[in-house]
Amino acid sequence: MAAAAPGAVSEARQWDRLMAMARIGAIAGDGVNRQALTGLDLEARRLLLAWACEIGLAASVDRLGNLFLRHEGTEPALPPVLTGSHMDTQPSGGRFDGIWGVLAGLEAVQALREAGIPTRRAIEVAAWTNEEGSRFAPGCMGSMAYAGVQPAGAWDAVTDGEGLTFGAELARLLEAERDIPRRGLGVVGGPAPFAYVEAHIEQGPVLEAEEADIGIVTGIQGSRWFLVEVAGRSDHAGTAPLRRRRDAMQDAVRAIVALNRLTEDPEDVLRFTVGRMEVSPNSSNSVAERVRFTIDLRHPDADVLTERGDAVARTVQAAVTSCTATVTERFSAAPAAFDPLVPDAVERATRSLGLRGLRMPSGAFHDARFLAAVCPAGMIFVPSRGGISHHPSEYSAPAQLAAGARVLAATLADLANR
Amino acid sequence: MAAAAPGAVSEARQWDRLMAMARIGAIAGDGVNRQALTGLDLEARRLLLAWACEIGLAASVDRLGNLFLRHEGTEPALPPVLTGSHMDTQPSGGRFDGIWGVLAGLEAVQALREAGIPTRRAIEVAAWTNEEGSRFAPGCMGSMAYAGVQPAGAWDAVTDGEGLTFGAELARLLEAERDIPRRGLGVVGGPAPFAYVEAHIEQGPVLEAEEADIGIVTGIQGSRWFLVEVAGRSDHAGTAPLRRRRDAMQDAVRAIVALNRLTEDPEDVLRFTVGRMEVSPNSSNSVAERVRFTIDLRHPDADVLTERGDAVARTVQAAVTSCTATVTERFSAAPAAFDPLVPDAVERATRSLGLRGLRMPSGAFHDARFLAAVCPAGMIFVPSRGGISHHPSEYSAPAQLAAGARVLAATLADLANR
Repeated sequence: MAAAAPGAVSEARQWDRLMAMARIGAIAGDGVNRQALTGLDLEARRLLLAWACEIGLAASVDRLGNLFLRHEGTEPALPPVLTGSHMDTQPSGGRFDGIWGVLAGLEAVQALREAGIPTRRAIEVAAWTNEEGSRFAPGCMGSMAYAGVQPAGAWDAVTDGEGLTFGAELARLLEAERDIPRRGLGVVGGPAPFAYVEAHIEQGPVLEAEEADIGIVTGIQGSRWFLVEVAGRSDHAGTAPLRRRRDAMQDAVRAIVALNRLTEDPEDVLRFTVGRMEVSPNSSNSVAERVRFTIDLRHPDADVLTERGDAVARTVQAAVTSCTATVTERFSAAPAAFDPLVPDAVERATRSLGLRGLRMPSGAFHDARFLAAVCPAGMIFVPSRGGISHHPSEYSAPAQLAAGARVLAATLADLANR
Repeated sequence: MAAAAPGAVSEARQWDRLMAMARIGAIAGDGVNRQALTGLDLEARRLLLAWACEIGLAASVDRLGNLFLRHEGTEPALPPVLTGSHMDTQPSGGRFDGIWGVLAGLEAVQALREAGIPTRRAIEVAAWTNEEGSRFAPGCMGSMAYAGVQPAGAWDAVTDGEGLTFGAELARLLEAERDIPRRGLGVVGGPAPFAYVEAHIEQGPVLEAEEADIGIVTGIQGSRWFLVEVAGRSDHAGTAPLRRRRDAMQDAVRAIVALNRLTEDPEDVLRFTVGRMEVSPNSSNSVAERVRFTIDLRHPDADVLTERGDAVARTVQAAVTSCTATVTERFSAAPAAFDPLVPDAVERATRSLGLRGLRMPSGAFHDARFLAAVCPAGMIFVPSRGGISHHPSEYSAPAQLAAGARVLAATLADLANR
């Protein structure tokens, strides 16, 4: 019976839905720029709601804007199985990161219903708010609040690049979705979910290199995010002698060079990224007065992450010469290993479908990181061409995505009937 | 008789006018942000025109937006003496850079008129368009076009940070000033000016350190401006192994480190500045795909400037590892030595007023650089506190600025009566 659900998964329907979503926020080169809580985000959610309504799922939204589409179980009082991911993208993102996990959940549930397979437990497809963190930092606000890692109002004052606050933009979204029933946030006043399964593109090169179909994700590496602010003095580029300058750009460069040394890793497992920099006044003939840059540091080993991360601030302080520097840790998440329940179910489903699975940790950060704090969690990866993501050229083939949805359908059928 | 003009210079009037101008575009910490061809620029020009009208000067404007206020001579057909500077500021600029040269010209001419001193030659106070180059690069567009260094339409397609073009913004300004008589651009169809004298704050630490009142400027160091564009590939900060990345930020840092070595100067005369950087997509958890940064290189010795400047492109190319880089020279001006006419006149005026003068080259770039191509030119510097400029804390005292205006009045009286 469990095999009937994967059989009802439609490769074409899932692909068409992905392409329809990709038109909302489309940018050059097949990319997508759909930031959290924007009008585009709202438009994408409306489209998702329309599809869920056709299928007969019941929608609800919590105060963080997390959206849930419920397939009812034969025993509604049992803790449900959750699946899903997020719908926002990076500013220069692709068509699959996040949105595929939501649409794969929809596809899997639709396949279960079309195959006439009842489940004891309800299955809820979730779309978590602001996973990327590119408009409002940090990411995973929706899943963090759901899991109770942070209180709901923790990020209300966080501003985007234009000075708009997360709180105000969230209120605007919820007002626009006032027709959708509101639910309590997280597991407050109700049972924790039975399990959470998130489908996602790998966003790395491993599956492609190993010629595997499915990544059976065993855990998520840890992350620490820092903001470095270097404050010097602006001067005239033509007159100020270099020795008298307090050049924030030059001290920022010194700090980055020193951080490169700190984060050297012969095994190439550690991830160190300076992805964002803002310069003030940012004028070609003025010495920079102020430079802000971000640090994204990740490693699967908690000890390594702690040791290197704790050294970031003193490395920056030792590197700057004439300016003052402040280093703020904005976000931290320890490496997480998933409970075996979901990975084992994913592995069984993969094998039953004759696909080649590979157990692996996730290099990227996901909402599953926080769901793992409230229930057994796990993830299903499909290959990313060239390991590329967060870029318009991000790509997974229709057949690869369909294979992932089939594994998800089989996994959900398994877990929801326990 | 020439001594009567400096005596009529009013320290209070000049200071009050400077403070009135400083309110147009005022920013925190006594700063000013008044970009070329903005509404604020227009407002400042209207105020200047009102003062010129009270004094009885005749206004005219050319097609580059250069504004002229003419004090008539007893022999109107003789080539006039020009004085002036610019009214635009850096984004985080001060109250004196540029605008003082215009208001000192106004003060000097008003003093001449109030002292009842006729001049054979007319004196024209000029306000040159877009000297700073911070909104539209390069700077000195107005004086370059006046001097015929570039044709009038050369920069029409140059865009500011918001995508507005110089051509369209100039047309908007000229339309708003259609009540002001239009004059031909530069010396086309008329005689070259007899001389050009520009008063300006030093923007460097020399006069203060040497306890001198007046800088008798003998020339201007050369400048070369470059734009470096580093193109890599965006990747997910958590999954892309560092060895597989094409990280534009890291290659930009490598290029800057290599350029620092190229521009080392034990004598601290060479000026090398990376003042502007733009990162794309500029997201903390995405590897940078593209980084653009500027180089401002200056030296008073033509050979040094040629040698180091010519090495910029190959230094960048040798430094980048995984990205491609393009280096574009956007602006170049050889070091210039002024004809002795104006410096000698400034020196005599300084001495006659009992002030301490110091012959020096200009570290900063000025409109006088281009006027020097069409007539004898020179500059009068006053001390800058702490050598600071292009910053809200830029400061010269009322008495220092009055001394400068007195030297200017005496110099103009001298030159305009030859």
